[in-house]
Parts: sequence; structure tokens; C-alpha cells
Amino acid sequence: MLYPQEFDVIVVGGGHAGTEAALAAARMGCATLLLTHNIETLGQMSCNPSIGGIGKGHLVKEVDALGGAMAIATDEGGIQFRILNSSKGPAVRATRAQADRVLYKAAIRRRLENQPNLWLFQQAVDDLMVEGDRVVGAVTQVGIRFRSRTVVLTAGTFLDGKIHVGLNNYSAGRAGDPPAVSLSARLKELKLPQGRLKTGTPPRLDGRSIDWSKCTEQPGDGMPAADGTPPSTPLPVFSFMGSAALHPRQISCWITHTNERTHEIIRSGFDRSPMFTGKIEGVGPRYCPSVEDKINRFADKDSHQIFLEPEGLSTHEVYPNGISTSLPFDIQYALVRSMPGLENAHILRPGYAIEYDYFDPRSLKSSFETQQIAGLFFAGQINGTTGYEEAAAQGLFAGINAALQCRGEGAWLPARDQAYLGVLVDDLVTQGVTEPYRMFTSRAEFRLQLREDNADMRLTETGRRLGLVDDARWDAFSRKRDAVSRETERLKSTWVNPKLLSVEEGERVLGKAIEHEHNLFDLLRRPGVSYPALVGMNGGAFVDNAVSRETLGELAAPVIEQVEIAAKYSGYIDRQKAEVERAAHYEHLKLPADIDYLKVTSLSFEARQKLARHRPETLGQASRISGITPASISLLLIHLKKGG
Amino acid sequence: MLYPQEFDVIVVGGGHAGTEAALAAARMGCATLLLTHNIETLGQMSCNPSIGGIGKGHLVKEVDALGGAMAIATDEGGIQFRILNSSKGPAVRATRAQADRVLYKAAIRRRLENQPNLWLFQQAVDDLMVEGDRVVGAVTQVGIRFRSRTVVLTAGTFLDGKIHVGLNNYSAGRAGDPPAVSLSARLKELKLPQGRLKTGTPPRLDGRSIDWSKCTEQPGDGMPAADGTPPSTPLPVFSFMGSAALHPRQISCWITHTNERTHEIIRSGFDRSPMFTGKIEGVGPRYCPSVEDKINRFADKDSHQIFLEPEGLSTHEVYPNGISTSLPFDIQYALVRSMPGLENAHILRPGYAIEYDYFDPRSLKSSFETQQIAGLFFAGQINGTTGYEEAAAQGLFAGINAALQCRGEGAWLPARDQAYLGVLVDDLVTQGVTEPYRMFTSRAEFRLQLREDNADMRLTETGRRLGLVDDARWDAFSRKRDAVSRETERLKSTWVNPKLLSVEEGERVLGKAIEHEHNLFDLLRRPGVSYPALVGMNGGAFVDNAVSRETLGELAAPVIEQVEIAAKYSGYIDRQKAEVERAAHYEHLKLPADIDYLKVTSLSFEARQKLARHRPETLGQASRISGITPASISLLLIHLKKGG
Ligand SMILES: Cc1cc2nc3c(=O)[nH]c(=O)nc-3n(C[C@H](O)[C@H](O)[C@H](O)COP(=O)(O)OP(=O)(O)OC[C@H]3O[C@@H](n4cnc5c(N)ncnc54)[C@H](O)[C@@H]3O)c2cc1C
Ligand SMILES: Cc1cc2nc3c(=O)[nH]c(=O)nc-3n(C[C@H](O)[C@H](O)[C@H](O)COP(=O)(O)OP(=O)(O)OC[C@H]3O[C@@H](n4cnc5c(N)ncnc54)[C@H](O)[C@@H]3O)c2cc1C
Repeated sequence: MLYPQEFDVIVVGGGHAGTEAALAAARMGCATLLLTHNIETLGQMSCNPSIGGIGKGHLVKEVDALGGAMAIATDEGGIQFRILNSSKGPAVRATRAQADRVLYKAAIRRRLENQPNLWLFQQAVDDLMVEGDRVVGAVTQVGIRFRSRTVVLTAGTFLDGKIHVGLNNYSAGRAGDPPAVSLSARLKELKLPQGRLKTGTPPRLDGRSIDWSKCTEQPGDGMPAADGTPPSTPLPVFSFMGSAALHPRQISCWITHTNERTHEIIRSGFDRSPMFTGKIEGVGPRYCPSVEDKINRFADKDSHQIFLEPEGLSTHEVYPNGISTSLPFDIQYALVRSMPGLENAHILRPGYAIEYDYFDPRSLKSSFETQQIAGLFFAGQINGTTGYEEAAAQGLFAGINAALQCRGEGAWLPARDQAYLGVLVDDLVTQGVTEPYRMFTSRAEFRLQLREDNADMRLTETGRRLGLVDDARWDAFSRKRDAVSRETERLKSTWVNPKLLSVEEGERVLGKAIEHEHNLFDLLRRPGVSYPALVGMNGGAFVDNAVSRETLGELAAPVIEQVEIAAKYSGYIDRQKAEVERAAHYEHLKLPADIDYLKVTSLSFEARQKLARHRPETLGQASRISGITPASISLLLIHLKKGG
Repeated sequence: MLYPQEFDVIVVGGGHAGTEAALAAARMGCATLLLTHNIETLGQMSCNPSIGGIGKGHLVKEVDALGGAMAIATDEGGIQFRILNSSKGPAVRATRAQADRVLYKAAIRRRLENQPNLWLFQQAVDDLMVEGDRVVGAVTQVGIRFRSRTVVLTAGTFLDGKIHVGLNNYSAGRAGDPPAVSLSARLKELKLPQGRLKTGTPPRLDGRSIDWSKCTEQPGDGMPAADGTPPSTPLPVFSFMGSAALHPRQISCWITHTNERTHEIIRSGFDRSPMFTGKIEGVGPRYCPSVEDKINRFADKDSHQIFLEPEGLSTHEVYPNGISTSLPFDIQYALVRSMPGLENAHILRPGYAIEYDYFDPRSLKSSFETQQIAGLFFAGQINGTTGYEEAAAQGLFAGINAALQCRGEGAWLPARDQAYLGVLVDDLVTQGVTEPYRMFTSRAEFRLQLREDNADMRLTETGRRLGLVDDARWDAFSRKRDAVSRETERLKSTWVNPKLLSVEEGERVLGKAIEHEHNLFDLLRRPGVSYPALVGMNGGAFVDNAVSRETLGELAAPVIEQVEIAAKYSGYIDRQKAEVERAAHYEHLKLPADIDYLKVTSLSFEARQKLARHRPETLGQASRISGITPASISLLLIHLKKGG
């Protein structure tokens, strides 16, 4: 049957990529259909019950700045929040939250069900409809044909998914969920370049069987310490539109650790490990290794910390973060019980690894449209990444670009100096992956300016222009932006006369008395000078009520934070900006579509081959292909200037 | 791997049967393991989001009286309650509730997670461990072998499950869930007599796309009427331990109806119906027919009522009760949109039928242990029944008997005059099924005494003896039971002297003045005499504070109800009791295990064959085998009296 309604965008898959893709396209006014295996698993967290972390938190804030769901759903489902790296510079500070699985899923589903322009339909997609070199829809398991102008595929770990526990394995999309076998076969027929990757998850424990007294309590930020000391920091909030009042009850995590006996047990299972015996072909995430990988690679380490993370407020289930494994179950059982507090721990669900199809992201355009099939976009785990946040960011991105294509507009391509999303997309399409890709701050050469705290400043205006940002967010954002620039201007134009500042006051606040006139902004740049102390000088002489909590409410603290960061880091940021500008020329220099790299004889043969294979769109992309040296780039530039 | 811990009872499957079985065995002190596909789907309602109804509500109250979870979970998840048949006699009155799927599942999971002696483990069971003719455990998909003394199998619709939509079909346990294929194959090897049945479910609708103004509102009991009139009845409560305070927000259902066009559309799909074209071999439930079945069988009816039932408080999803169908999706789409209010209705999930393996319950002992394999019990949909309530009741029953076997005690076999559970079990093991079996009050020959209101009186003492009933329930029950018998005694021993009752008062309360002494109990038997009016005679002269709300709290109303019913129905009940006693002799008369029916030549050949096939344990069972006439029973009795 051909379904009577035609859609602009069909999103296949209701995971983190699919839900953000569908929400984004619908927010942009496209008639959007989300097709997924099971409405009950919309927004399901396949593995760890937590969102954010360094690099990942940055992505979540960017998704949020563009009106996405992940951050606010975490505010509604988060049972423990922490600011990681809080003692370090703001660029690497990141939010991480434990989420109650049930509440998180409910928050996502509620948004999907209430999004105008968005229709949900439960059923596996077995096939794509392709006419010529264009996708025109998707076909479900019972033969319903849905027509659309674009399709965003976000099938996660489901394509020909295979679960491994020891030397046993079986087909599944995730424990308890069926795999997508027909669609995988169909995509193979379409000859999209693909491979296999794998990821893993730890066994889950019954909290009732854990002896907590042998573990170390780890409360979240904004919670009283384990000894009852009141919190010194406020409860973190993820979304720009969130607030601590949205958070459910906050609870602690716990820490235990592996020991020599644990490691011996693990080693004793190596001969039945599907990874070490070659049963698994797919490559796993180096940065999220299984516990057997860690023991194997870091043989000298005699203990690893294991975080015992509660899976929710209404369950005793516990996620032992750090022992992801596909070892045989008898090894899992023994290794768990070798750790302090877990001597009698009951395993509720075994750990496992899953192997699945992914598609080489180098065959995607920068918009995430496949090069082979017009209108077909890929996002999430199937592009070779791992992690909810990476998936959500890609989903949002692909949803936006599918919607733009429907509108007849060009793709939106955030630059590497604008967003982690830009870094993610660019890394994927130019460098591809050799193992599941995850985000780190170290991947962003412009990380000083790609901070969590300014994600809104970097992206919300774009989001508004694209149609992703609703009025409420836009109003709040505009108030913040305006307050920041007004206050920055005020600080810059407010001069402090040394005659009017007593030596004592100068020493107290600024470290030493000033000798000539300074504006407040310059004074704020000094190390150790805080905004409150500065404006509080001379009994509050420099306070402006326009940036008070009374005037700005919840926005007051973020506004002051922005002003402070702008002052303190402006030196570094300016220096980085100069670098960015210098690089920008190359960065955006378009490479001719018809260039025949193999004929650019000035380049090494390897460089010619790599460029011919990847066909970068800009010189910036070319420069990041692994194996393409700065020297090759110069030679290529000379070649182009000569008129190619 | 052989799992180190050995269990008394392993329950396979976490549906309605499995969860009650596991809870019951654990309550009885047995080390119990619940193995299921997916912890997230524990207690999932596969089809309609409602619990109870006539016959079914009776089962739920019985499960509750034995300490089970279904009634109290419904109290916690129920968003609309009704007392059906409220104007009819108490025997056929029944409670029915719409439940919020998410809240219901959470209530069940919470009980499972907090039940002492119960362990949960997520993984498909692929095999049973059998030694000689005894089951000794279960083996999961990745080869973990769990040893146990008994196994209760409750695999629902999952065994070799096959979903049909039109002429398309695919393997699944339920939409979105994987089937149990390996276990099905293994059970076939064990040569347990089995067959195929089918059941179906309607498409689900997006409430946002329904025009409610064209539908008729149907509020629940205890809710204001559609026009705002305050409720005349209290909010019903399901569990003996429940209260209306546990209920979440209450909401209305809505009614629309099919019309001639709907019926035409349906008929136009007959040639692609998997039922009518023979694609489905399994027989469906006659009493829960698909809409195509209804249109086919009742061709003269030109409209059917369709109830639009909300699936929960946090979703717009709507269950259209009455259009279960496996017609092709284009027909589903058109038939939905042909109904008033549904002109633009968006289908969220297609309707479908599912075919699955069931086992002939006639090869079960009365305890639900299989005759072929000692220690292996079957319960729920796999015994050929349909419905959550039938499944829950069987699960509880099998869990009890598995636990009793572990304790070395004989089976608990409720009689047909003691419980619907007795009727259900006896019907199944003696008569088997030719189509999915569901409970009706008409199945119970002793239905006058098998009421919802006295389920506790009938079963809680047994439950306590078996170890199923906790102290809180036992205390409350004992107070109620004692208050009922004290008050009954008081009424029987309180005599009303005609001299002390004025003619006016007699006429007002009793219809006419009394002429000689009567006790209050006898007066209460009179039609139209209510308990409050009776004890209120002569300005409250017969009121006893022991049965007041002040003394008994929530129990006061049920106590008075019991006393009143005992008085009013005692005539009927006594008469029925006499019948029961007369029948009881035959009922419980054990038939010799070694009797060779084929040699009982006084019986017809058909009767001999049927008896030989079914091998009933008692004469009562024999009498209910279809085709065994009362005459055959007399002949058999004569044969037995002659000494076989
Ligand atoms: C076992 C396991 C371990 C993991 N470990 C980690 C880890 O350690 N660290 C980490 O960061 N991340 C981990 N992940 C990855 C994380 O779960 C994913 O990165 C993230 O969920 C990807 O999101 P997604 O939206 O791309 O896909 P998914 O979340 O997998 O969602 C895919 C969705 O598509 C649907 N779908 C698939 N095929 C079809 C079809 N044919 N028709 C209809 N619907 C379809 C599915 O039902 C599902 O809703 C793990 C995942 C798994 C399964
Ligand atoms: C499509 C459909 C329509 C229905 N329509 C109606 C209706 O109209 N009216 C009505 O009264 N009832 C209907 N039902 C029936 C109702 O859902 C069942 O009667 C009831 O759920 C049976 O309960 P159960 O516990 O026996 O099985 P289920 O609820 O099916 O639960 C079975 C459980 O066992 C688990 N399981 C199965 N195999 C394995 C294995 N090998 N290893 C581990 N776990 C396993 C499953 O995951 C599941 O948790 C319908 C069911 C379906 C699927």
C-alpha cells in the first residue's frame, strides 16, 4: 500500500539521532514522519544511564542552543548532576548527569508526541524507495510504502546487529530488541560503502545485593556531601531553558574498584573472549574500552575505579561503569563478585558486545546527505560514532539539512570554529573512522571559544534563523545576549580614577592600588579579580541593577559569567581568533569539483590517492585528511593558483 | 556455564502469568528466578490497556485475595474505573479499569524488584534442562544454565510467534518484541501436545488527530458526568488493600461507532484477510472477535460501538476497542477514517494478528504440572487462554503449586465452587480448548457464591495458610471477617417485638407492619429492606457502633455489604449449596488411575475413547468433558461401584 499522505522528511529510527532529527525537521515546518521499531523504546538509552561529559556535554549544549530535546529531557530526568573539570578553565568544563531511564524516555516521548508537524508510526523499515539516484520514501515490514522528499536513516546498532557474550552470539538490535536484517541487506544492495563496528555494555546489578558500606559515596554537585556538609555549589542545569526546579530527587553514585584478583579472573577468560579469539570482526571504541581490553592493554595497572551508577529512582538496578565486557558469563559473574561491596551482587542483565553495520562517513556530503543517493541522509551510530550525544548532534544536523533541502535552500554547515557539531561533522566526512568515534575537547582546535557556557551565544541566532528556536527561548536568549553586551559596554566605558579608589580598597580587590585610570573591563582581566568584588568596590559604587537577580532572574548568573569570561579570556580568545582568521582563508577555499588529483604530479602518490578517494570540498577538509601534511596543502595551493 | 546458585522455582516469561507466578512462589519462601526477554517489558499489556470486566474482574479479585499484584497495580495505574452490571445482582457485578500502561508496568516492576526471595534475570530462554522425565532447569540464549527444582513456563504469545497484517507476515513475539523460536523448537522435540492459536489487536490512534466533539464522552464511576453532574457513586477500588487515594488522575473514555461505509470497506478487504484466505491456521477468540469477523458473522448489524480508550495520562495514544483487525493496512486506514470523529485520525501502530504455539491443557495435571515432565508447569496464554486476568490467575496458581512441590506438599486445587480460578483450571485440564479461552460468569455453575465482593472471604484464609498473604492483609482481612460474623450473629439474635415497632415505622422501613417477633437478619432478607434503614428503625435503636465507619474505617462499607448480601441471597445461596453438596460426592470421587476405559463396554465407544484420551482425575472432571453425557456418568458410576 502507498500511504496517502506524502512527507517532506521521513526519519527511520527513534534513538537519540532519530528523535532529534525528527523534532528538528518538524520544528522547521516540514511534514515529518518518524518510523521506528517500537514506540515504547523512543529515546531509549542503550547503555549507560548518563548524558554529557567532556566534549559530549558541549554537544548537548549545542543541540540545546538549536532548540533540541536532549538537554531539557536530562533536566527532567537527571538524578545526579556534576560539572566536570570545574577547577579548570571554562573551555574544558562540562556538564554530566545521571538520568533516570524511565523519566528520560518519558520526557523525550512527551516532546515527540506534542510536536506539531510530526507524525509517529511504529514499524520496522525493511526497504528504501529509490527512483533513479534519489530516495523517495521508505517501506515497512508489512509493505506500507511511505513517500517523502528526503529520508534520514538513524538505525543505530540495529543493522544486522549481532550480540556476543563469550563465544555465543545471536542476532539482535540491542538486548531485548530485534535487529534490522532486511534493511541491512537492502543497503548492501545499494552498495553504500560500509563496514562493521562493535560496542559493549557492562552487566547490570541488583542494588539490593550490593554492600554499599564497602563502597565510597559520591554525591553530585549541589547535594550535601557524604558527611552531611551542605553543598558549596548550586545544582547544575543542562538546558538554557531548564532550571533546577525541573530536576527530580537527586541521589548519590558509589565507587568501588577492581583488584588483582579481578584482573586474574578477567585474564582467565581471554581464551573465550569473542574479541581476542577473532569472533568479533568489528572494531570497538578505543576510548570506551571493555574491561578485558583495559586489563590487556594496561597490564601494569593493578586497580581501576568502577562507578556504581543508579539507573533510576524507581528501580534498584545499578550500572557498573567501567566493566563493559563481552567475556563469557561465568567470568562476568566472578569478576563482579571479586570487587569490594559486590561479593554477593546479583547480575540482572549480562554484559555483552554488539557488532553492527556502519557506513563510511567519507561517502557523505558535508550535509550528511549520501553522495550516492540524493535526499538520503545518515546520522548517528551508523556513521561510525558512539555515544548518545554524538548521535543527537548528528540527528539534529541531518534533520536540519533534510528540512533545508525540502525548502530548496542550501545546507547549513557549521564551521569548526563555531561548534563542536562542526568539528564532529567535518572530522567524520573528511577523516572517516577506524574505530567508533567519540567527541573530545582535544578534537577542537578552537576549543577556547567552543565552550559549554557560550553554546547559546554561538548557535541560537542561527537556530532562530533556521526556524528551530521557539519564541520563549528566543526571548530569553535575546535578553541574555543584550544584557551581556550592555554590561560589557558599561564595564568598558566605566573608568576608575585612582584618586577615588583608596589604596586599601585597591589592594583588597585588585591586589594592588592602581596608578592611573582603568576601565572596569580591563580591571576584570586581572587574575584574581572577580566581577562581584569589582563592582562591589567603594561600597558597591559600580553595581548596576540591570544585571541583578531582581532584573534578570535566572539569567543574572550566566550573564555575569559571560562578561567575566569575555574579559578574562579575551587575550587568549583574540589570539585564537587571529589564528582562525589566518586559517579561514584556506579553510573555506573551495576545491574544484572536477579536479583530477591523480594528475597533480607535484603531490606524493599517497597524497594524490588520498585526495582522489576523499574528494574534500574545501582546502580545510583536505588538510585534515590523515596523511595529508601541511606541505601537501601548500603544494596543492600552488597547483590551484596556477589555475589547476 | 552452570549458574552457581540453585533455585526452587524458575519462571520463564515476565508477562501477567509470569510475574504473578514469580511473586507467589517467592512469597511462599521459595528461592525464585524470573527469566525474561527484557526487564523493560515486565508486566507489559500487549493489547488493551484495561484490566477486569465480567468474569475477568472476578479472577483479579481472587488473585488479590491470594496476595497477588494485579489488583493493587491497577489501583496504582488505573485512570478510569467502572462497576459493570451495577444494577444487577452482586454475582455478576464486576470491576473494570482502564490503566495507564506506563504506571501499570511501573507498579508491577516495583513489586518484583522489592520482593524478597525473587531474583530477576534478563535473557531469552532457549532450552529446558531435562533429566529423565524431570525438568531441572532452563538454559538461556547465551548458554547460561540455571538449575532449579521446578520450572513455570509462561511464554505468552511468543512461542514461534508470527505477526500478520494482510497477506504479509513476519516472526515476532508481539509487535516490537522478538519471538521465542528456539524454545518453541525445543518444546516440539519434547513432544508436548501442542497447536496454534491466534489473537489480534486494533491499530492505535493519535488522540491529537481525533475530533472528540463528534464522539460521546463516557466518564468513569466516581467521576462527574459529561455535563458536570457530580458523581453518584464512589470511585471503585480493585484491591482489598487498595484505596481511591492510590488512583492517579481519572479521565473519560469516548464512544464512536462503525457504519455501513465502514462495513463496506472491511468487506472489500476480505480477499486479502489472512484469516479468510487461510494464511492463519490458528483459531482466534470467538468472544473477542476481530472486526472483520464481526462484520462477516453478524452481517445484518449495521453499526458497532467503538470505545476510544486513552492509553495513559502522559500520552495522546488511544486504543480503539472494537476494531481488532489483521486486514491489510490500507483497509485499516480507510476503516478508521470512515468513523465519526476519526475522519483525520492518524494511526500510530497498525493492528495485527499474532499466531503462536499453545499446549493442549488436557495434558496438564490439575496442578498445571505437565503430565510428561515432572516439575514443569505451564501457565497463561500458552495454555490456550486469552486475557491478562486469565494469565495472572493461572500464573499465581502455577507458582503456588510449583512452590508446594518444592516444599514436598500436595497441590492446591481450588474447587469449582470455591473460585473462578477453580473453574478456569478445571475447564482447561478437562475440556481443553478449541479456541482461545476466556472467563465468563456463565462458566461458573456456582456463580452466586463466586462473587467479586467475597473473593477475600473465599480465599484469603487459604492464602494465609499457603504463605501468600502478608501480615497487613491478614490483619485487615481478619478484622473484616470477624466484624461480618459478629454483625451477622447480632442481627440473628436481635429480635424485634411487634409491640415495640409502630405500624408507621414498620410500613416505612419494612413495607408493612410485622405481626410477630422477627430477628433483624430475617427482616433484612425482605426485598427493599436496606441495612441502614433497618438498623435506623426507631430512631437508630438497632445501630451498633462496632460496624461504624469510626470503628472500621474503610472496612465498614464492605462489612455491611457482606452482611446484607448474606441475608438477601442466603435463600438462593443455600439452595445452590445444596446442589453443590449433592454434586460434591461425584465431583470429588477419584477415578482409579489404572482404569482401562476401553474395556468399560457399557459406555458408548465415543465416551470410552474420550475418557481414555483425557484420563480425568475425578468424576466431576469426567462429567465436564465435552461429549460425556450425564447418562455416561451414571453408567461409569455403576461400573465403579461394581468394583471396576
Ligand atoms: C550494547 C551497547 C553498548 C554501548 N556502549 C556505549 C558506550 O560505552 N559509550 C557510548 O557513548 N555509547 C555506547 N553505546 C552507544 C549508544 O547507545 C549509541 O551511540 C546511541 O544510542 C546511538 O544513537 P542512535 O540514535 O544512532 O541509535 P540507537 O540509539 O541505537 O537507536 C536506533 C533506533 O532506530 C530504530 N531502528 C533501527 N533500525 C530500524 C528499522 N529498520 N526500522 C525502524 N526502526 C529502526 C531502533 O529501534 C532504535 O529506536 C552503546 C550501545 C549499545 C547497544
Ligand atoms: C496482539 C495481541 C492481541 C491480544 N488481544 C487480546 C484481546 O483482545 N483480549 C485479551 O483478553 N487478550 C488479548 N491478548 C492477550 C493478552 O495479551 C495475553 O493473554 C496476556 O498478555 C497473556 O499473558 P502471559 O503472561 O501468558 O503472556 P505475555 O503477556 O505474552 O508475556 C509473555 C512473557 O514471556 C516472555 N517470554 C516469552 N518467551 C520467552 C523466552 N523464551 N525466554 C524469556 N522470556 C520469554 C516475554 O518476553 C513476555 O514477557 C492479546 C495479545 C496480543 C499479543
